[in-house]
Amino acid sequence: MRFTSERRLGDGVRERAFTIGEIPGILWTPECASPSAAAPLILLGHPPLGLHRMYPRLVARAQRAAADGFASATIELPGSDDRPRWPAVEQARADLRRTMTEGRRVGDEIVDALVLPLVERAVPEWRAALDALLSLPEITGPVGYSGGVISIGVRLAVVEPRVSAAVLFAGSFVPRAILGQARQVTVPLHVLLQWDDEGNDRQAALDLFDAFGSKEKTLHANMGGHTGVPKFAGEAAAGFFARHLK
Amino acid sequence: MRFTSERRLGDGVRERAFTIGEIPGILWTPECASPSAAAPLILLGHPPLGLHRMYPRLVARAQRAAADGFASATIELPGSDDRPRWPAVEQARADLRRTMTEGRRVGDEIVDALVLPLVERAVPEWRAALDALLSLPEITGPVGYSGGVISIGVRLAVVEPRVSAAVLFAGSFVPRAILGQARQVTVPLHVLLQWDDEGNDRQAALDLFDAFGSKEKTLHANMGGHTGVPKFAGEAAAGFFARHLK
Repeated sequence: MRFTSERRLGDGVRERAFTIGEIPGILWTPECASPSAAAPLILLGHPPLGLHRMYPRLVARAQRAAADGFASATIELPGSDDRPRWPAVEQARADLRRTMTEGRRVGDEIVDALVLPLVERAVPEWRAALDALLSLPEITGPVGYSGGVISIGVRLAVVEPRVSAAVLFAGSFVPRAILGQARQVTVPLHVLLQWDDEGNDRQAALDLFDAFGSKEKTLHANMGGHTGVPKFAGEAAAGFFARHLK
Repeated sequence: MRFTSERRLGDGVRERAFTIGEIPGILWTPECASPSAAAPLILLGHPPLGLHRMYPRLVARAQRAAADGFASATIELPGSDDRPRWPAVEQARADLRRTMTEGRRVGDEIVDALVLPLVERAVPEWRAALDALLSLPEITGPVGYSGGVISIGVRLAVVEPRVSAAVLFAGSFVPRAILGQARQVTVPLHVLLQWDDEGNDRQAALDLFDAFGSKEKTLHANMGGHTGVPKFAGEAAAGFFARHLK
């Protein structure tokens, strides 16, 4: 892990860009975090739109996390922004767009081709990032995972024992293989669903929520469309992490 | 409205029992509430189990409301506790119990016979209570309605313009006539659903949530069974009222 730049955000948040091998990432820590007062970590997931485009939303989540005493970090997804292009996934995304534009049902094979390779590559990368981040003296467990591609969050919650609570955003297509693993998720979950999101298969999201094996799982469904998650829903997610990571 | 007893609960809450005609009720106000600092009101709905049995849960909700600066009040439902028995509804309840014990599907006619008469009688009583309560100088609008028989909450939200936000508990049978009115509900809603409540028709609850006309509506689904609403869900409902009634 190599830090490539650093700045202060002005509200007590230290922002550091880093790379792990070829993978760029960003780390935000409360300025008060130190080896003797290490901050628990929240991994900030995001959709595969690239960190540049996602930055404003990510930094807002990081600032909220820092205000609650949490460090937070994110890494670029494979195939996005400055990382090498990934023609197979681009093809799957084009297939998805065409299918939706033509008003046809999105079949399992399109969802599998789009999501499974992303999960298979991204999850080990998030775990490697976790190794590197937790080796920093000012950062400690427990670790939370928040948002982004829900299938990545599910797989990470299944395979990574250091993740002890997760906020998941229902809203992307979920392959059957991931749905089949949902029962193995046992950490406390806070699932956000935009009820009136037309690009989202609501029933699939409810089925996935039902399938999770967690004893504590909460579904928050709100209005506001795909990107219109209300402010109070963000507050509720922050409260969930405050309950579970402290 | 006639006050029949009064006591202090010790944490700055004044509790007064009252009657409106034949209907008993309880009013809780923060001690700081006064004509110059009147408290907004939350009506505390409850299932038809009688105020005596419901008192511990009601007083806990009232104390939480008072801590947030709200007055709260409840009245006895027709046919419960000290009010005259209501053989028709008792019969409908016995029919429901028998149907469920025998593992048969609960038909619309049983639900209608059980719930509609209760709605028809209770809603005007809650409105009369609202008249009386809002005439007290230490109480003011806006008014919230919270919990209890969801069909009563829905009808009240449709017909009573003074109710400006509602917390509803999904978990009782909802007649088609009430479902048909859900689109007319436009106030901000916060709906609680116990996901693993076996006595609850989850799909019916989701259909009802979907049908509400409110631009701001939130569904919070949690684990814990019928009576196991987690403490943090109560906190979230309190936060909803704090946002909307202040």
